[in-house]
Amino acid sequence: MTSDFSAWQQNLLIHTELALDRYLPAGDTIPQRLHTAMRYAVIGGGKRIRPLLAFAAGEVSNAPLTQVTAAACAVELIHAYSLVHDDLPCMDDDTLRRGKPTCHIAFDEPTALLAGDSLQSLAFDILSNTPTASPAQHVAMIQLLARASGSLGMAGGQAIDLDNVGQIIGLAELEHMHRLKTGTLIEAAVLMGALCGDHPLEPGQRERLNTYAHAIGLAFQVIDDVLDATASSQQLGKTAGKDALHDKPTYVSLMGCDAANQFALDLHAEAIAALQTLPNHQHLSMLADRIVRRDA
Amino acid sequence: MTSDFSAWQQNLLIHTELALDRYLPAGDTIPQRLHTAMRYAVIGGGKRIRPLLAFAAGEVSNAPLTQVTAAACAVELIHAYSLVHDDLPCMDDDTLRRGKPTCHIAFDEPTALLAGDSLQSLAFDILSNTPTASPAQHVAMIQLLARASGSLGMAGGQAIDLDNVGQIIGLAELEHMHRLKTGTLIEAAVLMGALCGDHPLEPGQRERLNTYAHAIGLAFQVIDDVLDATASSQQLGKTAGKDALHDKPTYVSLMGCDAANQFALDLHAEAIAALQTLPNHQHLSMLADRIVRRDA
Repeated sequence: MTSDFSAWQQNLLIHTELALDRYLPAGDTIPQRLHTAMRYAVIGGGKRIRPLLAFAAGEVSNAPLTQVTAAACAVELIHAYSLVHDDLPCMDDDTLRRGKPTCHIAFDEPTALLAGDSLQSLAFDILSNTPTASPAQHVAMIQLLARASGSLGMAGGQAIDLDNVGQIIGLAELEHMHRLKTGTLIEAAVLMGALCGDHPLEPGQRERLNTYAHAIGLAFQVIDDVLDATASSQQLGKTAGKDALHDKPTYVSLMGCDAANQFALDLHAEAIAALQTLPNHQHLSMLADRIVRRDA
Repeated sequence: MTSDFSAWQQNLLIHTELALDRYLPAGDTIPQRLHTAMRYAVIGGGKRIRPLLAFAAGEVSNAPLTQVTAAACAVELIHAYSLVHDDLPCMDDDTLRRGKPTCHIAFDEPTALLAGDSLQSLAFDILSNTPTASPAQHVAMIQLLARASGSLGMAGGQAIDLDNVGQIIGLAELEHMHRLKTGTLIEAAVLMGALCGDHPLEPGQRERLNTYAHAIGLAFQVIDDVLDATASSQQLGKTAGKDALHDKPTYVSLMGCDAANQFALDLHAEAIAALQTLPNHQHLSMLADRIVRRDA
């Protein structure tokens, strides 16, 4: 089963990489520097957790691969744009990402800014260009992604994260921030994948997928905090230890490492429980395992 | 007729302002600083040329006002986000916009960056949330806006503009840059307005609207260059004379003021000619007049 999962994952990672390569304008398309930077920020890096979640959720609703591919890549492009902007000097001012110099270091700040902006546009371009079972599903997916990306989702979470630097906050506030900053996009990946199916989701199914996505999104972040405190930069492919350095509140700073690990396990259990009555949920279940047991 | 046009314009400006106010999250929505900055960048400023073009184009296809309003506001939010990002220190480093301090001066750089990012998401959120005659029209509009905003449209034009600083370029290259930087979004405003109608546009109609939009978009930019060289900062509500200061190629630097003005008049004539066989094109025609005869 595990080796089946590895093969499934490996195939879809290659599939995603090829699809992203196809969706992104070629590096010699004018303006070349911008397109080269967009490709640099997207291709050949990252764990592709969000696309994998979309593919796994698509299996729950028997969704055709082509359609899930568009949804999976759109979510990944939003994620990639957010990393490019988060790394800019006026934000986290980071120089290392996915084991390479960050986009504004490899190119320059204006190019990185515009590359991020353009990756966001491209995500919606792709979503609106791929035929789905119905245009109404199309619109529902675009709506999910737009809401998850904006000021009430990912960008809003990043704003709260910046406000929190040096502040004393509680666990509820930390969870709210992470729910926006990373949770909403992970939830969008799961729901968009499932929405690609031929039939609309039943309300109960949607609710269970939401519970799964919410729990696994938060678990992902808790483990991120643990890894930031315990792993090396080389292992992570990005600067380690920067939460403590920047005096950012984290699950580790609020709970300690052991309690944070236990919290991640509790969330994992909640996610797995939510899947039980859903059909074809095996890969969602295994992705939950992988998210909690990862070491990078 | 002119006073009718003034009343039409005045009513729609108020209508647009109220709609933008309604679409934007309230300033006391968490994260408050981000939402306040988004509102600051959008509300109470700008000529709203793009929304007016959308409303006027909607009349050609008898489009319902509610639907054109969503399209008009989505285009204006994309425009507003581009101004916030263009003004950032790593781009044009500007301090004055629409007669007020730029967003990153009034707030701070990270907030301005995230406000721009979130305004882009909000544009797609609004478009996907407003019912239109058909979900297929919905998707077509989202596609138009996404393409016009990204690396093959507005953001790409901005990248070329940055590359052009201090370079010697010809008129064809200047036109290509402006076509991307401002033309594509103006074309999107016109076509999206027209797409809100009950019936799909006939190919001939769409082509004529494209010709109009292309000509008027370029004319808008030519006049912008003339005004940057001849008007005061107070008159423009933004820093005047900065093209020459930054050694940017413009229609004025390449042709001189008189020839640039004549070029704008030729484009205006082309735009008006394209409208002739379209129904209810009066307001598109008058907007073309206004764009060429404006003094700010």
